[in-house]
Amino acid sequence: MNLEEIRDLLQNIKNGNVSIDDGVDKLKELPFKDLGYALIDNHREIRVGYPEVIYCAGKTIGQVKGIIEFMNSKDNNILATRSTKEMYEEVKKICPEAEYNELARTITIKKRQIDITDSYIAIVTAGTSDIPVAEEAAVTAEIFGNKVERINDVGVAGIHRLFNKLDIIKGAKVIVTVAGMEGALASVVGGLVDKPVIAVPTSVGYGANFKGLSALLSMLNSCSSGTSVVNIDNGFGAGYLASMINKL
Amino acid sequence: MNLEEIRDLLQNIKNGNVSIDDGVDKLKELPFKDLGYALIDNHREIRVGYPEVIYCAGKTIGQVKGIIEFMNSKDNNILATRSTKEMYEEVKKICPEAEYNELARTITIKKRQIDITDSYIAIVTAGTSDIPVAEEAAVTAEIFGNKVERINDVGVAGIHRLFNKLDIIKGAKVIVTVAGMEGALASVVGGLVDKPVIAVPTSVGYGANFKGLSALLSMLNSCSSGTSVVNIDNGFGAGYLASMINKL
Amino acid sequence: MNLEEIRDLLQNIKNGNVSIDDGVDKLKELPFKDLGYALIDNHREIRVGYPEVIYCAGKTIGQVKGIIEFMNSKDNNILATRSTKEMYEEVKKICPEAEYNELARTITIKKRQIDITDSYIAIVTAGTSDIPVAEEAAVTAEIFGNKVERINDVGVAGIHRLFNKLDIIKGAKVIVTVAGMEGALASVVGGLVDKPVIAVPTSVGYGANFKGLSALLSMLNSCSSGTSVVNIDNGFGAGYLASMINKL
Amino acid sequence: MNLEEIRDLLQNIKNGNVSIDDGVDKLKELPFKDLGYALIDNHREIRVGYPEVIYCAGKTIGQVKGIIEFMNSKDNNILATRSTKEMYEEVKKICPEAEYNELARTITIKKRQIDITDSYIAIVTAGTSDIPVAEEAAVTAEIFGNKVERINDVGVAGIHRLFNKLDIIKGAKVIVTVAGMEGALASVVGGLVDKPVIAVPTSVGYGANFKGLSALLSMLNSCSSGTSVVNIDNGFGAGYLASMINKL
Amino acid sequence: MNLEEIRDLLQNIKNGNVSIDDGVDKLKELPFKDLGYALIDNHREIRVGYPEVIYCAGKTIGQVKGIIEFMNSKDNNILATRSTKEMYEEVKKICPEAEYNELARTITIKKRQIDITDSYIAIVTAGTSDIPVAEEAAVTAEIFGNKVERINDVGVAGIHRLFNKLDIIKGAKVIVTVAGMEGALASVVGGLVDKPVIAVPTSVGYGANFKGLSALLSMLNSCSSGTSVVNIDNGFGAGYLASMINKL
Amino acid sequence: MNLEEIRDLLQNIKNGNVSIDDGVDKLKELPFKDLGYALIDNHREIRVGYPEVIYCAGKTIGQVKGIIEFMNSKDNNILATRSTKEMYEEVKKICPEAEYNELARTITIKKRQIDITDSYIAIVTAGTSDIPVAEEAAVTAEIFGNKVERINDVGVAGIHRLFNKLDIIKGAKVIVTVAGMEGALASVVGGLVDKPVIAVPTSVGYGANFKGLSALLSMLNSCSSGTSVVNIDNGFGAGYLASMINKL
Amino acid sequence: MNLEEIRDLLQNIKNGNVSIDDGVDKLKELPFKDLGYALIDNHREIRVGYPEVIYCAGKTIGQVKGIIEFMNSKDNNILATRSTKEMYEEVKKICPEAEYNELARTITIKKRQIDITDSYIAIVTAGTSDIPVAEEAAVTAEIFGNKVERINDVGVAGIHRLFNKLDIIKGAKVIVTVAGMEGALASVVGGLVDKPVIAVPTSVGYGANFKGLSALLSMLNSCSSGTSVVNIDNGFGAGYLASMINKL
Amino acid sequence: MNLEEIRDLLQNIKNGNVSIDDGVDKLKELPFKDLGYALIDNHREIRVGYPEVIYCAGKTIGQVKGIIEFMNSKDNNILATRSTKEMYEEVKKICPEAEYNELARTITIKKRQIDITDSYIAIVTAGTSDIPVAEEAAVTAEIFGNKVERINDVGVAGIHRLFNKLDIIKGAKVIVTVAGMEGALASVVGGLVDKPVIAVPTSVGYGANFKGLSALLSMLNSCSSGTSVVNIDNGFGAGYLASMINKL
Repeated sequence: MNLEEIRDLLQNIKNGNVSIDDGVDKLKELPFKDLGYALIDNHREIRVGYPEVIYCAGKTIGQVKGIIEFMNSKDNNILATRSTKEMYEEVKKICPEAEYNELARTITIKKRQIDITDSYIAIVTAGTSDIPVAEEAAVTAEIFGNKVERINDVGVAGIHRLFNKLDIIKGAKVIVTVAGMEGALASVVGGLVDKPVIAVPTSVGYGANFKGLSALLSMLNSCSSGTSVVNIDNGFGAGYLASMINKL
Repeated sequence: MNLEEIRDLLQNIKNGNVSIDDGVDKLKELPFKDLGYALIDNHREIRVGYPEVIYCAGKTIGQVKGIIEFMNSKDNNILATRSTKEMYEEVKKICPEAEYNELARTITIKKRQIDITDSYIAIVTAGTSDIPVAEEAAVTAEIFGNKVERINDVGVAGIHRLFNKLDIIKGAKVIVTVAGMEGALASVVGGLVDKPVIAVPTSVGYGANFKGLSALLSMLNSCSSGTSVVNIDNGFGAGYLASMINKL
Repeated sequence: MNLEEIRDLLQNIKNGNVSIDDGVDKLKELPFKDLGYALIDNHREIRVGYPEVIYCAGKTIGQVKGIIEFMNSKDNNILATRSTKEMYEEVKKICPEAEYNELARTITIKKRQIDITDSYIAIVTAGTSDIPVAEEAAVTAEIFGNKVERINDVGVAGIHRLFNKLDIIKGAKVIVTVAGMEGALASVVGGLVDKPVIAVPTSVGYGANFKGLSALLSMLNSCSSGTSVVNIDNGFGAGYLASMINKL
Repeated sequence: MNLEEIRDLLQNIKNGNVSIDDGVDKLKELPFKDLGYALIDNHREIRVGYPEVIYCAGKTIGQVKGIIEFMNSKDNNILATRSTKEMYEEVKKICPEAEYNELARTITIKKRQIDITDSYIAIVTAGTSDIPVAEEAAVTAEIFGNKVERINDVGVAGIHRLFNKLDIIKGAKVIVTVAGMEGALASVVGGLVDKPVIAVPTSVGYGANFKGLSALLSMLNSCSSGTSVVNIDNGFGAGYLASMINKL
Repeated sequence: MNLEEIRDLLQNIKNGNVSIDDGVDKLKELPFKDLGYALIDNHREIRVGYPEVIYCAGKTIGQVKGIIEFMNSKDNNILATRSTKEMYEEVKKICPEAEYNELARTITIKKRQIDITDSYIAIVTAGTSDIPVAEEAAVTAEIFGNKVERINDVGVAGIHRLFNKLDIIKGAKVIVTVAGMEGALASVVGGLVDKPVIAVPTSVGYGANFKGLSALLSMLNSCSSGTSVVNIDNGFGAGYLASMINKL
Repeated sequence: MNLEEIRDLLQNIKNGNVSIDDGVDKLKELPFKDLGYALIDNHREIRVGYPEVIYCAGKTIGQVKGIIEFMNSKDNNILATRSTKEMYEEVKKICPEAEYNELARTITIKKRQIDITDSYIAIVTAGTSDIPVAEEAAVTAEIFGNKVERINDVGVAGIHRLFNKLDIIKGAKVIVTVAGMEGALASVVGGLVDKPVIAVPTSVGYGANFKGLSALLSMLNSCSSGTSVVNIDNGFGAGYLASMINKL
Repeated sequence: MNLEEIRDLLQNIKNGNVSIDDGVDKLKELPFKDLGYALIDNHREIRVGYPEVIYCAGKTIGQVKGIIEFMNSKDNNILATRSTKEMYEEVKKICPEAEYNELARTITIKKRQIDITDSYIAIVTAGTSDIPVAEEAAVTAEIFGNKVERINDVGVAGIHRLFNKLDIIKGAKVIVTVAGMEGALASVVGGLVDKPVIAVPTSVGYGANFKGLSALLSMLNSCSSGTSVVNIDNGFGAGYLASMINKL
Repeated sequence: MNLEEIRDLLQNIKNGNVSIDDGVDKLKELPFKDLGYALIDNHREIRVGYPEVIYCAGKTIGQVKGIIEFMNSKDNNILATRSTKEMYEEVKKICPEAEYNELARTITIKKRQIDITDSYIAIVTAGTSDIPVAEEAAVTAEIFGNKVERINDVGVAGIHRLFNKLDIIKGAKVIVTVAGMEGALASVVGGLVDKPVIAVPTSVGYGANFKGLSALLSMLNSCSSGTSVVNIDNGFGAGYLASMINKL
C-alpha cells in the first residue's frame, strides 16, 4: 500500500464507503507482515518510496517462495535479486507472469504500469565479464521506472572506445560505471563528466585482484570528484541509488 | 559424573556399600577418557559446570560416532554442533533418541530432564539468512535449560520492525544479536537496552563483507557499551555464554 | 574562464571589439596552465562545472602558494583542502581575503557571489569527533552555493537523539552521514529516508577500527539501499557529490 | 536525572509542591542537552541504567571541559576515558574534586555515594605492560559500584603463577582477562572456570602482533567456551560489561 | 648416491675395479636428473643429509609417477607428501611396496633399513581435527629414522589433560605442537618445558580463524621463548626440522 | 588491419584501384567492431603493435566463440587465454586450425607467418607446479614471434640446479622468472644477471602463502634491482611485456 | 673496476708492466670489500653492469659515510638513495663534489663522464605530490647515462592534459608512470602506447589508500598489457630498470 | 636459585647446617616474587633452564628498575631486551656493572661466569640495516654461554658474498638468518646447509614490505626444509632458541 492508497482508504472510511472494521483489516498489516522467518516491511514503500526487494542469497527456496507469495497478494511490482534458476522455477508455479533474467539473476513481477523517466541512467561496463553486474543494475533501475542506456566494453585499455561513446554518457542524468580488475574506468569517466558517478567494483579478475578488492580500493581513492562507491558486485545497490538520483 | 554423584560414591565407599575396587573403577575415568584420537574431558562438568560439547567439523564420521558412543554411556545430555546429516544418520543407529536440527546443524540427545529458567534469553536476528546461526545459539541455550525467545528479521533497514519487538527484547536477562552484512543491529540494540548484549557476526553478505569480517569489525567497534563479540557464525559460543549469564 | 565568458570573448572578436592577437592571448591558457610542478586544469569548470580544487596534502607550501597565486588571477572562487595553518599564513600574504576554517582545514577565497540553493544538504555526524570531516564536507558544499544543515552527535548509541532530528534530515534533498567506529549511523539513516545517502567513514576509533576500515566496510555492506560510500575521512568528496546531486 | 527523581518530581507537581512551569524547566532537558558539538544523552541513565561516559579521544580540550561542566551540574558520578593530563588540568579548574588515574588515563568525579557489590569482578593481566588497559577496566567497574580484584602478570609463559591465583579468580562472578601478544591467557582461564570471561586483547607486542590483531584473533577463536571479546585495548568496554553482569 | 657410496665408487676406480667410463656414467647424474618438468636434486642427500621429498600438490599424476619412478631406481627411502589416493594407486603399479597413510596423505617407500634414534620427538595436538597435520609430521620424522611419541587432544580448554601427559612431553628432545583455532597450546607447552618447541598452526577453525591465520599469529607472538613456527598445516616441515634437531 | 595494409588501401584508392565506397566499407570498422557484449579493438594493432588478445575468464562460451569468429575474418594471429577445453571445442567447429595448449589453457590460431627473433626470452620456473603459468608466458611470447628458452625446476632449495643453467639464462635479452611459495628465485636471478627480469608470482603453495600473496610481496620487495612484477599467475602479461622488450 | 680495467691489468701483468704482487693487491678486493657492517659488492659492476648503489634507510650516518668513503677511492659514479640532509652534510666533508637532490633525497657523485643515450625515458606523474618519487627515478636514470623527459601532473581527473603530452610520451623507448591514489594513470598510458610501461605506485593519498596499497593493486591488475610494477614509492627501482631497457 | 642450589639447601637442612626456618625463608620465593605489577618467575630457571628475561617495551622505567633490583639480589645473569638508554641510565645507578649494547638495545649484567660452548651459532644478516636485530640475537646467545659467529651483509642481491662465507656458516650447529625486504636469504641458506635454520624476518624495507610482513610470509613459505620462523624483529627469540638447540 502506498501513500495515495492510504489516503484513499481513509477518505473512504470518512465517507462511510468503507467500514471501520474493514479499515482496520486493511491497515493492520501496514507496518510489516510476520512470516516467522521474515518480517515483510510493508511500510517501506511509504517510508523510502520503493517496495521492499528480496535478496535471495542465503534464503531457502521455500522462504523466497513464501515471501513472494505474500507480496504477490499486494499491488506492487516485485524484484528478487541473486535468485537461482531453481528459485525462479518454484516462483513461476505460483506466479506465472514472473520473469527471469539469467545474466542479472533477477526475478521480476510487473503488477502495475509505471511511468518511465525522460532523463536516463547510463550504465557503463569496462569489459564483457562485467555485464552481469551491470545487468542487475539495469533491471533494478528499469523496474523502478527509469530509462536506461547500456554502454558495454569501453575499458581504458582501448580508451578510444570510451571517447566514441562519450556523448551518450554525458547525456545521462547519473552514470553507473561497472568495472573489475583495476577499476580505472570510474576515474576516467568521473574526470570527463559533470554528473554524479556511482562506481561498482566487480570481482572480475584474479590474483592480486583479491575478489574485487583491487577495483574497490581504486574507486574509493579515485582522483576524480563526484564519484561514490557501492559494495563489490552490488549492481542492485547502484541501480537503486541511480534511480533515486534520476528521479530527483 | 557430576559433583553430587562423586559425593554419593565416596559416601557409599565410606559406608561399605561400594568396595574400594569398584570405587577405583568408577573414578579412574574421572579426568578424561582416552579414545586415542580424543581425550574426552569428563572432568569438564565438574570444572566448568557443563558437559563437553562435540565440535564435529574436521572430525571423521567414525570419530564423532565413537565419541558420542562413549558419552552416551554416561548420564549427561549431549550436544554436537556443526554436524552433517550423514553424521546424524550414523549416530542414530547407536542412539535412536538423538535429534537433528537441520537449520542449526546440531545433534542433541536428552538423557535427563533439566529445569528451565524463569528468566529468558532473547535471540535476535537482522535477517532471514542469519537464522541458522541464531538457531545454533538457541539449541545450545535450550539444552542447558534456558528459556529462549526468538525475534527474527528486525534489521536496521526497517527499524520500526525492531521497535515493535522492543518490549520482548528488553524483558530478557541477556540478549544475543545475530547479524551479517554491516552488523549495525548489535549497536542499535545495545543502545536501547540495559542488559548484556552478545553480538554474533555472521558470514551473510558478499563482496567487501569478506566472509563476515565487516560485521565482526562493526561489532567490535560498537559505540554502544555493554556489548561483547564472539567468532563469526559462532552461534554455539553465544548460546553457551548467554546460558552462563542467564543462570547467574 | 567559464562557458559564458568564452562566448562573450568570441562575440567581441567577431564584433571587432577584441583583436585576434588579444583573443589568442586570452585563450591560449584555456586547457591548462603549466607551472612545471602542476598543470592547472582551467578547462575543468567548462568540462565538469566546477573550478579545480587544490588538495594540499603532499604539496610544499611554495607549490600551494604558486597554484593559488595563478588561480587568484582568474575570476573563480577557490577552495584548498587539507591545508595547514602555515600554508594559510603564506597564502594570506598574497591574498588577504583568504579565509581559514581550522576544523575543516580549508582555505576559501570568495571571488564572486553565487546563488544559494533552496533545497538543502543535511550533514549528519555520529559523534563530536566526526565533526572535522563533516565540516570539510559543509565548507565544500557551501562554496559551491548549497544550503547546508548540520546535525551533530546523533549516533546510534542514543538513537532517540537521531529521531528527534529526523524531520530536518528527511527534509533534505541529499544526506551526508559521517561516522567512525562501527559506522552504523549510515544504515539507520538510510533505512529511514527516501533520499540519496552519501556515507563518509571516518578514522575515529581505535584498535580493531584499523584507521577507519571498520566504518568503511560497515557502510559498503549497508543493508539499507540508496547508500553509497566515499573514502575514509573524505569530507570534500562527499560535499562535492552532494552538491552535484542537490543541484540536479 | 534517574527514574526515581522523575517520579519524585511528578509526585511533587501532583501535590502542588512544584509548579507546572518549574516542572517543564526541569524536564525539558530530559532526553538530551544540545551543546552544538555534542548532544548529551541525559536519557541514557533511564534507558540503560548508567550515566553517559565521555570518550575524550578526538575531542578538543574545550569540548571535554564543556561536556563535563554541563554534566557536573547534575547529580551523577562522571567518568571520562582516554583523557590526557592536559584535559584533566583544565577540568580540575572547574571541578576541583575531579581525580586523574595516570595509568588508566581516566578522570572520575564522585558526586554521590553508591553501594558496593558483595560479589566481585576479577581482572587478570598476562603481563605488566597490560596493566594500563586493565586499570581502565577496574576504574570503570569501581565507579559503577563493583568490587574488583586485580591479579597481575600471570601469563602462560609461567603458568604456575596463574594456578597460584586460581582460587581468587574462581571466586569472582565474572572475569576480565587482559592480554597482548598471543592472548593465550583468555583460553586458559576460560578452560579453568565456570564463569563468564570477558577477553580484552591489548596492543602490547610488536611485529606480527599487528597492533593487537594477534591477541584479538586468538581470543575470538578461543577453544574455551564462555568467552567473549571486546575491542583491542577497550578496558572501558570490558569494565562496563563486567559491571552489568556482576549486578545481575 | 650418498657420500659413502661416492667414496666407494672412487676407491673402486682407483683400484681399477670400475672403469673410467662406468664411473662417468654413474656420476653424471650426480647433481640432478633432468626430467624436463623436474630437475631431481640427487645432490641433496650429500648437501643437506636427506633425500629430496616430493611435494605432490600442483603436480599431475603423471609427473608424480615419473619422479618416483626415477627415484625408485636409486637406493634411498622415498617420501611423497600431499598426495591423493589416485596418485598412490598409480605409484603402486610401478612400486608395489609403496604405502599410503590416508590421514597424513603421504606415500612412503622404504628401500633400506635406517637406525631409529634413542631420543624421541613428542608430537602434541590440541584437538582431534589437528591429527592429520600431526600425522604428516610423524610420518616424516619416522621415515628419517626418529622415534616419535604422539600425544593427542590435549588443548587448553581442558588443561588437566595436558598436565596428565606432561612427563612424556618433557622427556622428548624436541617437541612439535600442532594446534588450530587460537593455537594457545604452543605457548602453554613452551612455558612448561626447556626443549625447542616447533609450533605448527593448522587451518582448523572457522570465521575469524581466517584459514589458520589466527593460530599462525598466535604462535609467532608466543610469550614463551624457545618456540619457532612453520607454515600453516606444514606437518612435513615440522617433522623434517624436528628430525634435524633430534639427530644433533 | 595493420599500418601497412592501411597505407596500401589508401594508395589503391588514390590509384583508382579501389573505389571510395569500398574504401569506406573497409575502413569503417577500423577503430572497433561492436558485438553488443564486446567492442573489438581493431585499432589496437596500429596503436600498440599487437592484435587484441581474448581473456576468456568470465565470458560465456558463446561470447568467446563470437569474438573469435569475428577476428578470424581478419588476417591476424589470434590468442585466447584462460580458455577452457569446452571453449576450445566450440571454437574448433568454426576454426579447425585452432590449437589448444592444455597446460597453458590457451587457444592459438596462426593466420600468417611471423619472423622469429634472434635474441631470446628465458622463462625460468622454481618448481614443476609453476609450469602452467610459465607455459602461458611462453605461448604468448611465441605467437608474437619471439624465440623462447624454457628452464624448469631450478628453485633455490637446490641452488646448484640454477647455477648449472646460468649460461642459458644470462644469454637471454630478457628473463621471466616464475615462482610460487616464497618466490626467492626472482631475487637470486636478479642478482646474477644484468638483464631486465620480469617476476611472475604464482599461487603455488598453501597456508600463509595466501594464494600467491607471499610470492607477490617477496618479488615486490626484491633486494635485486632490475626486477619488476606482474599480477599473480599472470603468465600472459609477462610474456607480452617480455616480447615488447625483446623486440626493442 | 670494470671488465675493461681488469683486461688492461692482466695485459700489463703479462707484459711485465705490472708485477704479480701489485696485481694481487689490485685484484684481492675484486669480489667485495669487507667493512664489518657491510660487504661492498665490487663485483657488481662486472656481473650486472652497474656499480652498487647505497640504500641509506636503516643505516647510521657513520655507515653511509664509511661506505661512500671506500667507494670514492674507486673510479665509478656513486648514487645513494633515501639519504637525509644530515647524511649529505657528513658525506660532503669527505667528498666536496657530492650533490644532494632534496626532492629525490639522493646523493650523487660524478667521477667520470658517461655517454648519454639518444633514446629517452619518459617519466610521467599523475599529480604534483608524486614528483619526489619520480625525481628519484629520474636521478637514477640520469646517473646511469640516460636521457630523461619529465611529464608532470597529467592524472586522469583531467585527461586532456595527458593527451596534450602524448607525443612526447609515445616518443620514449620506455615509460615510467608514477601515481598514487587509485593509480589509474598507468592503465590509461599502457593502453595508449606500444612501449614497456613501468608502473610505480606511490603512497600519496589517505584513508582506504592504505599507504599505497590501492595504487599497487590497481597497477598489478591493470587491464593494459605491457605494464609491470615495482614496490610502492620505489623510484630508484623504476629508474634502474628503465635504464636497463633503454640501453638494450 | 637453580636445581643444584636447591639440592644443596635441602642437604644442609638435613645435615642440620641450616635451620628449618631459614630454609623456609629461602624457599618461600621459589615459585615467584610478587612486586604488585610483576610476578617474577623464579621458578623459570628450574623449569625451563634459563633465568627470566625482562622485556622492557611497555614497562615504565620504574618497573624495569624495580624488577632488575630484585633480580640483582639473586645470583643469576640478567638480560633486559628492548630497553632504552634512559632505562639503562637508571639501572646503572643501582647496578654499576650493567652494560648497554646500543645496537641491540640490551642491558646485560654478568653475575657469574658460565662455560662457553665449543659448537657455535652462525648469525647471518642480509644487509647492514638488519644488524640491530642480529645483534639482539647474538647478545642473547652469548649471555647464555654460546659461541657466536657473525656474518653480515651477504644478501642474495650479490650471492657470491654468501658463497664466500659458506664454510663458516656450514660449520655452525645451528644458523640464524636475519633478513628484511623479501627475506630470500633464509631460503637460500636453508637449501645449502644440513643444519636447523632459524629465520628472523626484519621490518627493514618500505612500501609493500608492510613492516616486515613480506619477509615473514617469505620465510614461512620457504621451499627449503629445515627452516622455522620467529616473530618480526625478534632477535631475542632466535638467540634463545638457537641457544637451546646449540646446547642439545
